[in-house]
Amino acid sequence: MQILFADKFPAKQLQQLQTSGYATIFQPDLQAADLPANIAGNDVLVVRSTKVDRETIQAANDLKLIIRAGAGTNTIDKAFAAERGIAVCNVPGKNSVAVAELTMGLLLSIDRNIPDNVRELRDGQWNKKRYSSAQGLMGRTIGIIGAGSIGMAVAERAKAFGLNVLMINKPNRSQATLDRMKNLGISTVESIDILVAESDIVSIHVPSTDSTRNLINAELLSKMRDGAILLNTSRGDVVDEQALLDAMDSKSIRVGLDVYPNEPGQAACEFDCQLAKHPNVYGTHHIGASTEQAQNAVAEGVLEVVQAFENGTRLNCVN
Amino acid sequence: MQILFADKFPAKQLQQLQTSGYATIFQPDLQAADLPANIAGNDVLVVRSTKVDRETIQAANDLKLIIRAGAGTNTIDKAFAAERGIAVCNVPGKNSVAVAELTMGLLLSIDRNIPDNVRELRDGQWNKKRYSSAQGLMGRTIGIIGAGSIGMAVAERAKAFGLNVLMINKPNRSQATLDRMKNLGISTVESIDILVAESDIVSIHVPSTDSTRNLINAELLSKMRDGAILLNTSRGDVVDEQALLDAMDSKSIRVGLDVYPNEPGQAACEFDCQLAKHPNVYGTHHIGASTEQAQNAVAEGVLEVVQAFENGTRLNCVN
Repeated sequence: MQILFADKFPAKQLQQLQTSGYATIFQPDLQAADLPANIAGNDVLVVRSTKVDRETIQAANDLKLIIRAGAGTNTIDKAFAAERGIAVCNVPGKNSVAVAELTMGLLLSIDRNIPDNVRELRDGQWNKKRYSSAQGLMGRTIGIIGAGSIGMAVAERAKAFGLNVLMINKPNRSQATLDRMKNLGISTVESIDILVAESDIVSIHVPSTDSTRNLINAELLSKMRDGAILLNTSRGDVVDEQALLDAMDSKSIRVGLDVYPNEPGQAACEFDCQLAKHPNVYGTHHIGASTEQAQNAVAEGVLEVVQAFENGTRLNCVN
Repeated sequence: MQILFADKFPAKQLQQLQTSGYATIFQPDLQAADLPANIAGNDVLVVRSTKVDRETIQAANDLKLIIRAGAGTNTIDKAFAAERGIAVCNVPGKNSVAVAELTMGLLLSIDRNIPDNVRELRDGQWNKKRYSSAQGLMGRTIGIIGAGSIGMAVAERAKAFGLNVLMINKPNRSQATLDRMKNLGISTVESIDILVAESDIVSIHVPSTDSTRNLINAELLSKMRDGAILLNTSRGDVVDEQALLDAMDSKSIRVGLDVYPNEPGQAACEFDCQLAKHPNVYGTHHIGASTEQAQNAVAEGVLEVVQAFENGTRLNCVN
């Protein structure tokens, strides 16, 4: 069985696959546009954020399985893969800690203005006065949208900072989730409108789906508190770009972003994004899952998916 | 009784003092050099980081009490104040949460390179590749130097991130401190040398005294792991500047600093500091205690010191 890796993958787990008798083609620099020319002959394709479109799937002759080394599968044409009998499987939950760490990092960076502090010191300026008006986190309220493994990992960390944590009371939560919310001392509110109105900080941890597209729109933003903080480390299309630009200007919303609408597929390129350049935004380059700890955990998960597939099981199949 | 405030002080607590019958002079922009000309006639002087030197104390005719609205009193000539019968009292422990929050913010900023992410996005550059090689915090080890209220507040938060926490086993720790260390699951080592050698991250939380000056010197830095992270949110003179510059260059130590040697006394000015400008450093402008939450807590503490003094007690007297 031949496996093409079109994104980074840790050497340790790659070697484990080779030792187990798999042929591995490691081409981490392949772009979406290169895939059609490189996919033939491979039984399995492993990607992180590299897009897998209809053209790639059409060009595949032996492909049986696409593995998303991570959670979000919005970059893969799952429906067309299903048509061709190709399973799309993901490795959910392994990135949670890394995303939660970045979320807290963005929150603390915003509250204390750390990136602008750094910029001024590097410019040879001391400006204690400008940076001495933070609010601090303890005693404030964070509303977390999404009670999956990432939302819960953020909640755990937020609690240690003495933040009050709010989540939405949904009828379809599992008992395990409800128990975890109770054990963490998370308060619930009845709607997303109430959540944003009662929060000093709002953090988004939902997948990109038809029902979450532009979930954070002008109407919801109008209910946020003046000067509140919005964090999005989920997917760019969950937030209405223009509405957020307006809210930053009209009510001083401060924003931490790891994801953007029309995010580049490339590893490095020019990126002229109004959101990313706005002075109220501290942005990172969609690096939420990009820690050694997370990559090792995800790679172990990829091995499990490969082995299960060989034993006739489609583990975490999403199409 | 007339009280001069030579630094910021929250309006709420200022008003409480006025309501209680105190005369308050609120001049938050006074610099150290302005104090001698403004000190006469005041019974109490309240400062944050504004220096109180011999000249100011000499010019004071009615002064009985200097209150440091915060913990560190290294900016006040305590010995000369004592000679003149002037008590110097501080308000310790109220800043702990704010300093711990900044410490964690600097740590997460360094691990994920948040300030440089922000800079590149503002420059119109997308560079996911460059920023995708963080280590992540979970499972790594932080060595905390100092087991006071700030060190403990950092330990609590570090534990929530799944960091292993090390502290030094000292014979003079109080039972309360030992109990808290045990409850938090903090491991102990026998010396500072072992602490830095076994840590991926070292965070300093000691006061500035004769025995802590240049505590972090070339010899200790040589024992740190290559690529380790050093955090100093305590006082600038605890670290040997040249030794740290050398360690950053020779073994890629990455550094988060809120404090510097020869830190400006002014609120804003030029500051040509090699440490603050070094590419391995993320620096803030000595804003550790500067949150609304901390300032309210400290202001409540200042009120307690004033009231105790009027009742004949020198609360938290340090000279």
